[in-house]
Amino acid sequence: MTSILNDAGMDLIFRQARTHNGWQDKPVAEVSLRALYDLMRYGPTSANGSPARLKFLVSDAAKQRLAPALSEGNMAKTLAAPVVTIVAYDTHFNDLMPLLFPHEPTAKNWFADPAVRETTAFRNGTLQGAYLIIAARAIGLDCGPMSGFDNAKLDAEFFPDGQLKSNFLCNLGYGDPEALFDRSPRLDFDEACEIL
Amino acid sequence: MTSILNDAGMDLIFRQARTHNGWQDKPVAEVSLRALYDLMRYGPTSANGSPARLKFLVSDAAKQRLAPALSEGNMAKTLAAPVVTIVAYDTHFNDLMPLLFPHEPTAKNWFADPAVRETTAFRNGTLQGAYLIIAARAIGLDCGPMSGFDNAKLDAEFFPDGQLKSNFLCNLGYGDPEALFDRSPRLDFDEACEIL
Repeated sequence: MTSILNDAGMDLIFRQARTHNGWQDKPVAEVSLRALYDLMRYGPTSANGSPARLKFLVSDAAKQRLAPALSEGNMAKTLAAPVVTIVAYDTHFNDLMPLLFPHEPTAKNWFADPAVRETTAFRNGTLQGAYLIIAARAIGLDCGPMSGFDNAKLDAEFFPDGQLKSNFLCNLGYGDPEALFDRSPRLDFDEACEIL
Repeated sequence: MTSILNDAGMDLIFRQARTHNGWQDKPVAEVSLRALYDLMRYGPTSANGSPARLKFLVSDAAKQRLAPALSEGNMAKTLAAPVVTIVAYDTHFNDLMPLLFPHEPTAKNWFADPAVRETTAFRNGTLQGAYLIIAARAIGLDCGPMSGFDNAKLDAEFFPDGQLKSNFLCNLGYGDPEALFDRSPRLDFDEACEIL
């Protein structure tokens, strides 16, 4: 018997979910961040490499460290968000593969080439970023993902040793529906897909 | 009132979902592929750029065109899958931005730099690849995503004009639970996350 998600679930994670730009004055509990991670970590990655690393900026001090890297248009809404998540990836994620892929002791070496490692970390760290967005919605949080910031400036501040690299940011909280823009159109099936 | 996904939903899309390597002899209906796309297309992308392009390989002829690009270890399970999805991205996705981001007529030019355009297409096409995985599970399909193939060989066969580039592959169908491997461990919160 095949299960499918009910309509309310499809609405919650995809159909009615929106990117939020305004936030209610309501904090996000630490337990919510832990529940969020505990869901998203089950999403698949290449050889279970799990390269995403998350910094949840909750304090004003941490957000002020981020501010100089933000673009003008993303500044106010980001500093007002209860949580700003730096979705980063570990360029040496394969060092943990003996733990993450225990049945194949040589898996670490599949990613010895720095270019392959970088592409793999970016691709799979991005997949995990999408799992974060969906998992956040699944536990009742709203998201405001964005890539309008200066990655090099952020990395110099938060990841000075160069092992982690920033990918994108995702504001988290309880959105203010009044601040939503109208939903933009999506491509139709035949504009984006082909069956061969 | 905040809604959250029910337990069965969290199990279906994250906690109990597994990457499948064996497939039941049961086709995937075209209407399922259309339902899948109709969910995943609502996931957020930068400025709604929506760069992912999908080729659903259903016919034997299409799968045979793919075969030379597959790695040895991914060959048999991929040719046996009811559908093999090529998750690709459009390196000129911004040409469609007047349609996708109609309230900002200059948005197309934000991505004029080829390096920015490539990174944006890859990042957001990958987010959409993750939405595909989650949406497939949400409608009762099983997934087998993989990046073990020769991208250049695939692109030469399917995208000879160079505008689209392959990102990863995702087999789709109804998985054979007997062919599952044991689930590999995931990183704990404190190994992957920090609250600042």
